Parts: sequence; structure tokens; C-alpha cells
Amino acid sequence: MEQNTGHGKKAQEKEFVREITPKAVDYSQWYIDVILKTKMMDYAPVKGFMAIRPAGYALWEKIQELLDLKFRETGHENAYFPLFIPHELLQKEAAHVEGFAPEMAWVTKGGSEILTEPLVVRPTSEAIICDFYSRWVQSWRDLPILINQWCNVVRWEKATRPFLRTSEFLWQEGHTCHRTEEEAEEETLKMLGVYKEFLENEMAIPVIAGRKTEREKFAGALRTYSIEAMMSDGRALQAGTSHNLGQHFAKVFDITYLDQDERLKHVWQTSWGVSTRLIGALIMVHGDDRGLVLPPRMAPTQVVVIPILTRKDRERVLLAVRELKGSLEKDFRIKLDDREEYSPGWKFNEWEMRGIPVRIELGPKDLDKGNVVLVRRDSGEKEFVPRDNLGRRLPQLLEEIQKDMFKKADEFRLANTYSGSDYEEFKTIMAEKRGFFAASWCGDPQCEEKVKEDTKATIRCIPFDLETDSNRCLVCGKKATASVYFARSY
Amino acid sequence: MEQNTGHGKKAQEKEFVREITPKAVDYSQWYIDVILKTKMMDYAPVKGFMAIRPAGYALWEKIQELLDLKFRETGHENAYFPLFIPHELLQKEAAHVEGFAPEMAWVTKGGSEILTEPLVVRPTSEAIICDFYSRWVQSWRDLPILINQWCNVVRWEKATRPFLRTSEFLWQEGHTCHRTEEEAEEETLKMLGVYKEFLENEMAIPVIAGRKTEREKFAGALRTYSIEAMMSDGRALQAGTSHNLGQHFAKVFDITYLDQDERLKHVWQTSWGVSTRLIGALIMVHGDDRGLVLPPRMAPTQVVVIPILTRKDRERVLLAVRELKGSLEKDFRIKLDDREEYSPGWKFNEWEMRGIPVRIELGPKDLDKGNVVLVRRDSGEKEFVPRDNLGRRLPQLLEEIQKDMFKKADEFRLANTYSGSDYEEFKTIMAEKRGFFAASWCGDPQCEEKVKEDTKATIRCIPFDLETDSNRCLVCGKKATASVYFARSY
Repeated sequence: MEQNTGHGKKAQEKEFVREITPKAVDYSQWYIDVILKTKMMDYAPVKGFMAIRPAGYALWEKIQELLDLKFRETGHENAYFPLFIPHELLQKEAAHVEGFAPEMAWVTKGGSEILTEPLVVRPTSEAIICDFYSRWVQSWRDLPILINQWCNVVRWEKATRPFLRTSEFLWQEGHTCHRTEEEAEEETLKMLGVYKEFLENEMAIPVIAGRKTEREKFAGALRTYSIEAMMSDGRALQAGTSHNLGQHFAKVFDITYLDQDERLKHVWQTSWGVSTRLIGALIMVHGDDRGLVLPPRMAPTQVVVIPILTRKDRERVLLAVRELKGSLEKDFRIKLDDREEYSPGWKFNEWEMRGIPVRIELGPKDLDKGNVVLVRRDSGEKEFVPRDNLGRRLPQLLEEIQKDMFKKADEFRLANTYSGSDYEEFKTIMAEKRGFFAASWCGDPQCEEKVKEDTKATIRCIPFDLETDSNRCLVCGKKATASVYFARSY
Repeated sequence: MEQNTGHGKKAQEKEFVREITPKAVDYSQWYIDVILKTKMMDYAPVKGFMAIRPAGYALWEKIQELLDLKFRETGHENAYFPLFIPHELLQKEAAHVEGFAPEMAWVTKGGSEILTEPLVVRPTSEAIICDFYSRWVQSWRDLPILINQWCNVVRWEKATRPFLRTSEFLWQEGHTCHRTEEEAEEETLKMLGVYKEFLENEMAIPVIAGRKTEREKFAGALRTYSIEAMMSDGRALQAGTSHNLGQHFAKVFDITYLDQDERLKHVWQTSWGVSTRLIGALIMVHGDDRGLVLPPRMAPTQVVVIPILTRKDRERVLLAVRELKGSLEKDFRIKLDDREEYSPGWKFNEWEMRGIPVRIELGPKDLDKGNVVLVRRDSGEKEFVPRDNLGRRLPQLLEEIQKDMFKKADEFRLANTYSGSDYEEFKTIMAEKRGFFAASWCGDPQCEEKVKEDTKATIRCIPFDLETDSNRCLVCGKKATASVYFARSY
């Protein structure tokens, strides 16, 4: 860990630029540098695990706060289910256990007792929750069940990357039961919509919503939907999934209800989740070579105030920035950095690196003119605003930044979205440029497999509204059944 | 799980009283009945584990919300540390590992790989967090570190009881590092004070704050403080603990900082926590034979509105209650129960069982008179309030209930607190009445041990401000060094 020892202020200022590897040089290293330098996470002693430090966890808390509100508005309640799942329960749904078996962590000893039946640390909670639901659901009056859980899960991963893929991560998992197939499908799509809206409006991340192919769907689901975001290296990131589980689990876990017609029926289920990988998406979509760039609605601190102190005017400037902070803290998440052991230049770099959307500078000259200086993190633009107008200008500016950040990300997405029907051209693009490639597909998993072998790309999803020019499969040339996006993914 | 099939409304109404075992008949069964009937939890397929259902989890969310605010006000930030701890790390602090060894759950296999070093599922996180802190702390500028974590922990328990003692539970654990012993002690006591204030002001639970004896302190701590509450059967419940860890962990984990005097020093640490057992305390302090009684500040729903519908007046009463709810929902957590498949009497019982502080009844007669009926859950008192005065009366009433609930619990505590210097009398009281017994103690762990053998009671704490008449140890008669409370505990 680097230390800021307070010596050599010029050296300090240079330090920052030096310590973050530019994106263009090494994208993966840039990502790690940003995360470590901003103290968002640290590696755990056990490989594949991490600690989420306050700067990273504050973003997760913001995600929780904003999403939880939307879950409540759509009628969901939170609950908590056990961490350990008897292996026997996991085995009930064949596709489910097969999908998760390679990633399970096993508890085999409790206290001094060797367990007769080993327990699995939850990789996801369908199995344990269905066991409870089989007792909680009896009558049509008990439906729908609309429960969500915020928790940790463990998936034993071989290749890990902070926030994007770790052996333990935090997430939310919604688990619902419905009377009819239609209602379950409606819930599945509603929650996908909640995710899409959240990413686009709050995180300023444009996403493609669509259905996953059979090959890519959740182990045990009838249909999986996802939202796919484009990172700034052109790769796709699956940012959220929503599954229509059909009656697969209901049948093996015997979740039945007595309907109004006095007949016993199996419920229809859904599950849906987003995880701490959203923090990774936020970094990779918006970050630049100077560090994080946070959209105002997500930023735990939206505004930082930095006084420009001179020996002569120290007192009156400090007085002014404190008064300024006091007048704004009711309406904005604002921090005053009045530490005197660091230079203003050092602080500018520090808070830029941390991605704070707006910096307010205030020095003796500004004070004399009755102005403050506002600096946007996203564009670097500077503006002088009369002190008296700040309360009106600041919310506008934050809104502008929020919108511009979405716009910029969306323009990047469009600029890196290709389409066509020439397989060779497709291969070249995937190898040289990454990005999303819209094309027609015959529906055959063998064509998916071939694409993966040739380019490492997969079908990210079958978007709801994508139209492609050709009606022939990009790969085999046979009649197409769907328009899809191919991309390499995280 | 029982079903409300909607038939026989009279039968339904009787059901409730029948289904909760009276406290006087069987206190333990009363507790379980209340928890199961109100759907706060359900037993997991693995012995000792439980699911916290929405009705129970909503209380945990309230605890989180209110405490988290206090943690922030006192300068703390949240973070997240790994679930699994390498055994090697746990072994570093000898007393710590010895204390937790019997309760550890072991992960021995990840994916298909047998782990060369088994991992322990965190029973508490000092060891793993100290490993991080040894890297995060370098200079005096990095101090204090004030971090809190909300998470699940696992302690393999033999005898479990929902909320009070389960093999997995939810909690928060604060972990701080300081420059000086004084600062660490100040933090330890500050957080104990935060807990005390929270329990008394928000949960309406009076507590005794004090220091634990050497025998009862946390494994690895220098000093442990706790708050102790009296349950309505006279037994004590340790509701929160705050530990001054001294430099025990800092020394074995090598957490050092370069001080301003250029010398390398070990930090001073604290840790402190409360858990989902607070939900158990809430039930046992305030609950009665009709079910839960929730203090207004903790109640997820503070007010329930129940219309008294007759065929003739159905429309206008429904209109009135909906308008009523609409006018109050900005200022109160309010629910309208306008289900028509249940009778008002059934609903009264239902919401009383769930402990909602205030019920508003509104029928045609009330409507004609311009009144509503308010019924307090805690006392059963009824009052008629002019509709126009409700917005003023309701907050007063909720405040009165909050205060009266604390007062009642405190009076109960005082009425069941004994003192004396006669060991035989003490034994009789512990056997026949339970309660707290204030007495002098010589400081010898052998006297503690003898009390435990004779009465199952332990020294709950050495309160900060307790004075006892005798200066002789209750047990051995030798010179006393402390005034303590003895009690049987959960």
C-alpha cells in the first residue's frame, strides 16, 4: 500500500498519473490499478476472495438502496434463508445441480463432528428456498409469494477478477411463486425491466435486454432473460438476469396449492438477481485514465469542496468553504476537503481519481469576485458561478452530467456495434475490435459452439427488438430463426 | 403450516387464543408459538438453522436502519470481508482460537479440489480483518480505522433456539484501530453507549451496561463490556457486546503504524456487535399471551386501519378508510386491511398477534359521528377521536405507547431485581423467581463457578454504577472487590 508521507507535493501530484496504467496500454491492468488505487477492494489471503473496502462498499450500498426501493414498489419483501444447503436438496433438480456442481464449496465438519451429509455453501438459493416454499404455499390465497434476499454466495472459481468474478460475492436474489404461467412470465419481464431502468437511469449504463439461448440459460430455468452492457473495451458484461423457472422446481420440490376450483396445482416460479459485479460495470463503462467517473445518482459523494488557501487569506477562505458546505449539505452529498497537509493540486487528482462528479474550488480571488469554480469530472469542463446562484446551478449540473454520461456510453455502444452476414468479416471484427455484432442465427447450438471456438464470442442475448438484414444464419447460412448479438464477454 | 380457509368466522377468532400457549403454562413454548404463528421464522432442513421470514426480517431491517445511522453519525463506514478464514489466521491469537474452536464449521472442498488448508466459515471476523488491517495501516495518518460490517456468521451450536441461538445468524461487527489505549477504550464505551441508547429509546428495552468478568469476556479481548436485558421470564439476555481488544491482535497480526515521532507502534483495537438475537429480545420483553407487542419506533407497520363493513354501508365506509389511509401514509407506517374474506374480529386478533401498536376501527356509526376508534396494542385501551383531530392525536399516542412500553419493562425489571448478602436466600430466588440479583463479589472465578453449579446463574456484568450494601463476597464471604448482577441467562 502506498503512503502519502506529505513530502514533495509536486512528486505527489505526478504519482497519480504514473500509478494508473493507461487503458490503451493494458486494459486489465488499468482496471486493477483503478480499483486498488481508489481503495475499493483488496485481495484476501484465500485465492479468488476479496474484501470490499468502504469506497467500494459505498457503491454497493447505493445499489442496494435504489434497487430495494424499486423491489418494494413492485410488491416484494425481503427475507433471509440459510447459507448451507443439504446436497440432497440441490440434487432434486437435475439440470440445476449439474450446472452448479463444479463451483460448489463443501462444509464437511461442524464443531468436532464430521457431517454425515455434507452441506453446500449456497451458490444460489433456489433449492433451499423451494424447500421452504413447499411448506409455505398451500392455498391460492398464499400466492403470489414475492420474496427477495440480499446475501453472499460462493461459487468456486478458477479464474477470478475483482468484482466481476470472485469465489464469494454479494448479490440479491428474488424468488417468486405464481398461480399461472402468464403471471410468472410477467414477473420475469417486469424485474428485467426494473434492472434495465435502474442501470440506465441511475448507473448511466445503456443495456440490451433480451432472452438467453438454451445454451446460455440458467441451470434449471425454462427461459432466462438478461441485460447486457458494453464495457469500454468493447466486451459485453451480463449485468443482470431474470429467470422464468416454469414448474421445473415446483414439480421436484412439490410446491402445490389448492386453487379456487379445489384442484391441487403446481406453482409457476421466477428468480432474478444482480450482484457486486455491477460495481465492475460502473468502473469499466465510465472510468478513464485518471480513475473512476461516477454518475451523480450513484456517487456516495457528489460534490467535493476544495479551498485554495494562502497564508494571508486562510481564515476567510476556510470560513467561506465551511459556510458553503453547510448551506449545501441538506440537498447534496457533499464533502469538504480542508486538510492542510495536502496541496490543492494533490487533492484535485485524488478526488478526480475517486470519480466525484463535481469539484467546487474556492480561493481568495473567487471570494473577492463572489464566484465559485465548478469542475466536472466527466468532461473536465470548468465554469464560474456566482455564489448566490450555486443552489440553482448545482442540481442542473448534476443532471447534465448524469445525462451526458449515459449519452456518451450509449454513443460508444452504438459506435462499437456492428452487423452483417459475412462470417469472415465477423471474425475479423471480433478479433480486432471487439464490440457487439448483430446477426441472424439459425437456432442451432452447434453454430454457437463454432463461433465460440473461432472467436471466443458467444450469443449475449436475443434482443426483443433487434432486426437484422439477412434471413440466413451468420455461421451456417441456413434459414435464420432469430436476430442476436454476438460478443466476447466478461 | 396452518391455513386460513375462510370458513367459520367464529371458529377462526377462537383459533388464535388457542394456538399460542400462555406464558404462564410454558414460556419456551409461548415464545416458539409466537414466532411461528406470526411467521417470523421457519426451521431449516439443517438442524440449528432457520429462515427469517419477511415478518421477522422487517424487524432486522429496522434495527439495521436505525443502528446504521448511529454508526455513521459516530464516523464509521461499512465494508465487507471474506466469509472464509484460513485456519492458520485464526490460530494466531491463542485465546481467540481456543474460544471459537468448538463452534467452527469447516470448508474442506472447493469444486472438485480437496483443500490443502481447510477454511473456517467466519464465527466472527477479527482474524481475517486483522490480516487486512496489517496492510492497510502504515502511518498515523491512516488512523483511526472505523469500519463496520453487516453479515452472516456461523457458530456450530448444539442447543439452539430461534433468534436467540442459531448455528447461523446475522449481525454487525465493528472493527476499529486507534493510536492510543485511551482512544480505544473511549471507542469501546462509546459504542456500548450507542447500543444502550438504541435498545432503550428505539426498542423500549431497559438494559444494564457494565463490564464482563474475565471468565465471561470475549476470547482474545482485553476487556469486554455488555448490555444485559431482562426477559419477561426473569432471565437475562446479553443484547450487545463491545470489546477493548488492547494490542492482543495487533501484536500477533503485526498491525503497526509509523507515529509522528517516527517510531513504529502497534495499534489499539476494538470490536463490537449486536445480532438477530435482538429480535428475540424484542419478543420476550414486550410480547404477551396474544402475541407480539411492537414499540412504535420499531414497528414496520405502526397503524392498521380496519373498516367495519355492513352490506348497506360498505361503499361509504371503504371510501372513508381509503381516504383516511391516504391522508396518514406520508407521516406513519400504515396498512389498510380491507380484505372482505375475513371478519373484523378475525382481523383484530390477527393484527394484535402481529403486535401492530395502534388499530384504527371505522364503521358506519363512527362515520356518522365523525369519529374513529383507536385501540392500543400494549394496553388494549380504546379511545374515540374526532376524525379531524387524528393527525394530531396519532403521533402523541405512538409516543405515549413507546414511553409506556419502556416504563412497563423497566418496572418489571425493578420488581424482579433483588439484592442481598445471604447466599441461601440468593439460591432460593434464582431457583424460584429468576430475575437479577445484585451482590458483592470477591473477584475469584471459583466463586463464579460455584454460583453456576449451584444455581445455573452467572455474573452478567459488573455495572458501572451499582452499589451494594455488603462489602463481603456473596459466595465466600471474603472482602468484595466489585458489585455485580447475577442472573440465569439465555
